[in-house]
Amino acid sequence: MPKIIVSDSASLVDRWIQALLERRPDLEAVPVAALGDDEAARASVDYALIWAPKPGLLASLPNLKLIVSVGAGLDHLTSDPDLPRHIPTVRMVDPGLTQGMSEYCTWGVLSLHRLFVPLLNAQASGVWDVVHAPIASNVRVGVLGFGVLGSKTGEALQALGFQVCGWSRSPKQHDSIPLYHGEDGLREVLATCDHLVLLMPATPETYKIINADFLARCKPGVGIVNAGRGSLIDDAALLQALASGQAGGAVLDVFHQEPLPSDHPYWAHPKVIVTPHVAALTYPETGADHVAAAIAALEAGAPLPAVVDWDRGY
Amino acid sequence: MPKIIVSDSASLVDRWIQALLERRPDLEAVPVAALGDDEAARASVDYALIWAPKPGLLASLPNLKLIVSVGAGLDHLTSDPDLPRHIPTVRMVDPGLTQGMSEYCTWGVLSLHRLFVPLLNAQASGVWDVVHAPIASNVRVGVLGFGVLGSKTGEALQALGFQVCGWSRSPKQHDSIPLYHGEDGLREVLATCDHLVLLMPATPETYKIINADFLARCKPGVGIVNAGRGSLIDDAALLQALASGQAGGAVLDVFHQEPLPSDHPYWAHPKVIVTPHVAALTYPETGADHVAAAIAALEAGAPLPAVVDWDRGY
Repeated sequence: MPKIIVSDSASLVDRWIQALLERRPDLEAVPVAALGDDEAARASVDYALIWAPKPGLLASLPNLKLIVSVGAGLDHLTSDPDLPRHIPTVRMVDPGLTQGMSEYCTWGVLSLHRLFVPLLNAQASGVWDVVHAPIASNVRVGVLGFGVLGSKTGEALQALGFQVCGWSRSPKQHDSIPLYHGEDGLREVLATCDHLVLLMPATPETYKIINADFLARCKPGVGIVNAGRGSLIDDAALLQALASGQAGGAVLDVFHQEPLPSDHPYWAHPKVIVTPHVAALTYPETGADHVAAAIAALEAGAPLPAVVDWDRGY
Repeated sequence: MPKIIVSDSASLVDRWIQALLERRPDLEAVPVAALGDDEAARASVDYALIWAPKPGLLASLPNLKLIVSVGAGLDHLTSDPDLPRHIPTVRMVDPGLTQGMSEYCTWGVLSLHRLFVPLLNAQASGVWDVVHAPIASNVRVGVLGFGVLGSKTGEALQALGFQVCGWSRSPKQHDSIPLYHGEDGLREVLATCDHLVLLMPATPETYKIINADFLARCKPGVGIVNAGRGSLIDDAALLQALASGQAGGAVLDVFHQEPLPSDHPYWAHPKVIVTPHVAALTYPETGADHVAAAIAALEAGAPLPAVVDWDRGY
């Protein structure tokens, strides 16, 4: 009986196990915490559905054949220095997570576009201060990182009436959204977009990519929504751009250190909305299809869905 | 040369005049403020594009043939006790206004659905408190008042993944959104919806329609977005429902008295977002098409677009 170990937030582990067994009654699914410490127990594990493994854990499983990340990002895996990168690894693709990300980013862009950040401050001060926004059809939003999440988010923003474009490292195609890639493409996107949605993966190339130089190339007053990873932003540079007006506002869900330290200037910044990494959650009830599909593909020797290319970093 | 008088916020009057003359160079368009006070000046006015006329003004124009409201609502006209109701009157239909309303209501529903109201409070307290929302596809939103604005708003929410239904006084049809009407329909909508968007007109029938009885028939924790008119809500009843938990939160743009008085409990309420009547603005550049179409229809003896039925009240 093939065995899968499961780790996630405590409240979700039982839901994962139930959702997996509904799809694959032939599996044995056990919480990581319930896996014995002896060699036989470790040798019995075939698959791992994992969130932030204890360093060394995955490397200690001699018969591990597949790793499935509970999240779309991988930094919760790569924080394990002994992560066995030779074992096939797939990123999460979950319609629930995609949906949540699209909702969050839509809310974030609307919050910046409709000046809700100053309006919420006005409410806090009890001040009735009428401000009006431009028409969305005159406003351009750039989605940086244009995978499954970026594409769905771009479509939602386009359906709301915004001009939308996308940017990714390598060339991609979309039916209705113009896409750019590479350094030339980035220059064009930054020069023309009123708001940017960050959905890039955390890789060495994207580390602090939103730095002083990047922000200086944006349109004055640019709005930033970061639902990707905290590592994308050079916080000092963003704070300086907010102070100078080069950045108009920011809606931030992810941070270099989480929880965001209580003395961080973002918390009380009048142009910043801070949310506690809630943009998108993987839902076991919708994500289990992807886990089952990845296991089935592995068993059939077929190409794995959303497989990680460690050279690329995602 | 037919003459039209124009009144709106000071910053918009010139934009209206320019937009109208682009479409109808044969018109003479003048700000209300520039209209002379003598009989000849008053007799020269054929059409009025008007926002909150000085009481008695419209009744004093002997040759007035058409009134166009700058807003979708009419309460800024009916506050004139001498409003000449025998003169054909049309409501504004403006793609820019429709767009703005759909953006605001989408933002309001997302704010309630994604628990951004408590999250913003948590930020104000500097607290990292992770909360997760249900999947939008399991959440039902009812749009009460299903004219041009309600229909576009419903479509935007449906495109984002919500279950959406609509309610109106009289039966209507929509391709993809189930619609209800009348008292039986309202019962069904209130019993099943997680959030309600209020876009009803201000009429004697809708005055304080959101009262204690109405709220008691809603699902516990119901979210309320009011972008229609302040008169729709019995504020004491809503505050009581928020206190008991029967209402989960409210996003309010319109109020019985505007500006909202500085001592009103909504301002500092932890479950209420207050915005200063900014949901939707009529844009001269997009709304002038409707004004030109109404004048052309009148001149041709054709049916007027969005004509007001004063017996119905809108």
